[in-house]
Amino acid sequence: MPRILAADFGGTRLRAAVVTGDGVVEQRNIIDSPDQREGVLPIVLDLLERTASAAGGAFDACSIASAGLIDANRGRIIISPNIPGFRNLALVEPVAERLGVPVFIENDASAAALAEWRYGAGRGFNHLIHVTAGTGIGGGLVLGGRLYRGARGFAGELGHMVVDDGGPQCGCGARGCLEALVSGAAFERRATRLLRSGRSPLLAEVVGDETPGAVHLYNAARRGDILSEAEIRNAGHYLGIGLGSLMNLLNPEVITISGGLVAMGDMLFGSARDALKDMAYGPTSGVGIRFSELGDDAGLLGAAAVAEEHLQA
Amino acid sequence: MPRILAADFGGTRLRAAVVTGDGVVEQRNIIDSPDQREGVLPIVLDLLERTASAAGGAFDACSIASAGLIDANRGRIIISPNIPGFRNLALVEPVAERLGVPVFIENDASAAALAEWRYGAGRGFNHLIHVTAGTGIGGGLVLGGRLYRGARGFAGELGHMVVDDGGPQCGCGARGCLEALVSGAAFERRATRLLRSGRSPLLAEVVGDETPGAVHLYNAARRGDILSEAEIRNAGHYLGIGLGSLMNLLNPEVITISGGLVAMGDMLFGSARDALKDMAYGPTSGVGIRFSELGDDAGLLGAAAVAEEHLQA
Repeated sequence: MPRILAADFGGTRLRAAVVTGDGVVEQRNIIDSPDQREGVLPIVLDLLERTASAAGGAFDACSIASAGLIDANRGRIIISPNIPGFRNLALVEPVAERLGVPVFIENDASAAALAEWRYGAGRGFNHLIHVTAGTGIGGGLVLGGRLYRGARGFAGELGHMVVDDGGPQCGCGARGCLEALVSGAAFERRATRLLRSGRSPLLAEVVGDETPGAVHLYNAARRGDILSEAEIRNAGHYLGIGLGSLMNLLNPEVITISGGLVAMGDMLFGSARDALKDMAYGPTSGVGIRFSELGDDAGLLGAAAVAEEHLQA
Repeated sequence: MPRILAADFGGTRLRAAVVTGDGVVEQRNIIDSPDQREGVLPIVLDLLERTASAAGGAFDACSIASAGLIDANRGRIIISPNIPGFRNLALVEPVAERLGVPVFIENDASAAALAEWRYGAGRGFNHLIHVTAGTGIGGGLVLGGRLYRGARGFAGELGHMVVDDGGPQCGCGARGCLEALVSGAAFERRATRLLRSGRSPLLAEVVGDETPGAVHLYNAARRGDILSEAEIRNAGHYLGIGLGSLMNLLNPEVITISGGLVAMGDMLFGSARDALKDMAYGPTSGVGIRFSELGDDAGLLGAAAVAEEHLQA
């Protein structure tokens, strides 16, 4: 079983740890994501080195799962929206030089898919679609037991599939993308609109002087606000349509979901499951939705799974 | 180079021929598709046997690409909408028994994708999406240089991705599928509706006493009918949205297209290309659409390509 120095670089935290082949995570080190434009490489190297030496060295590889656009072939981060210093940052070469082991880098949503497949809700399946449902909607595809990257490593952007042409404007420029209809950002817009309509006093009470968002819609709905619940169920319907399209296209065995929106449980996903069932085109029917249970270690486990796949190849 | 006894079973014709590894097609035999419910197996066996003996025997394999739902693992056709006798028909075993070579069977759209990849517009690419744009919309995926089948062999049903939730009813039961918006069947509905509106005398003239369809819309548009042209461009827009979603999801290198709708050329596909370009999510942009040039032999070449992939595995 390989021993991997794994890192998970997100917009809020940078994590590093040691992951063994059976998915045990040890020696976690967590720091806030740097917000400066320059000089982030030494911070990253220091985090990795501290983790490495605390664990007593001896790794088969170092593997980084990072938010943002990753050019895995060239070993660099192209851009990571919430970490300004991760712009056009060559990471693989300096890390390899410092640590003296093979270094891999992968988009975090793709890594998460591989984590679910190897360690999580997707264990035992060959064909898996993973959805990261948080502020944005992303995803990863494990097809035939391997991470599918596409031509340039950008496969899995399932948040930017259009399910409702002419629907709300998406950050990507298109209209009616899945992400524009069901995501943390979409729920902010839904909550704001409902609040401004003045038709939901309960939502107004729940929001108070906070920025309206998914959690307020959900709490208002749980306290009986029909309009807040309708927003969540409507979003769930679109999610189901999107997953149904994926099901008909890729004929997967299972769909796994992680991210903040999982907390909405049946209110969001019951509606999604109904739409998904209605979409089933003949024999593609019957694919289940499973929630991730990997928690905060998902990114580290994903990075480790990416390294294990590379080492086996 | 292997020598394959290839068959292409469609709703109108059954074709058989010998295909050599470099894509040369010889000894074509073509018959009308049988319309009876019983006794089609002897017809199929006879067609294959005649082709085999005319070519002097000595094959590495026999390979069948068939319309309909195919259970490749069990070697049978589950159902083929336009060939009643192809219902729950075990084909692989009896053909193998008769011919004494390995026999493979595959869905014709998947086989067509592999044909484009090996012999056609997709040569030289690793990641290809193929669209069959005829009466219905189907497709096949070649990912990482191999046909992607999914869990049960049903992958590639890209006609049943929803691009406009709440759009026109699709034959599959959902609303706003790609096939419900842009396909031969969709153009029939579009042409019928426009005709009934009475707003397009030119279309009425072109249709005469025929059943209105794609070809009438196209011919009326070419003669200057703006409303007919608008229908085609609107359909092209949806096609582009669907292909854009696929591009963002799968990050392919090329999209190839075959089928009757290719005849609509720039009027349909110019509009599709525009929508596709607008959908490009950052680095997935720049994927081209290429038309198939394999003609009537596409199915035979697809069957041969399927056999070659199996023999190499």
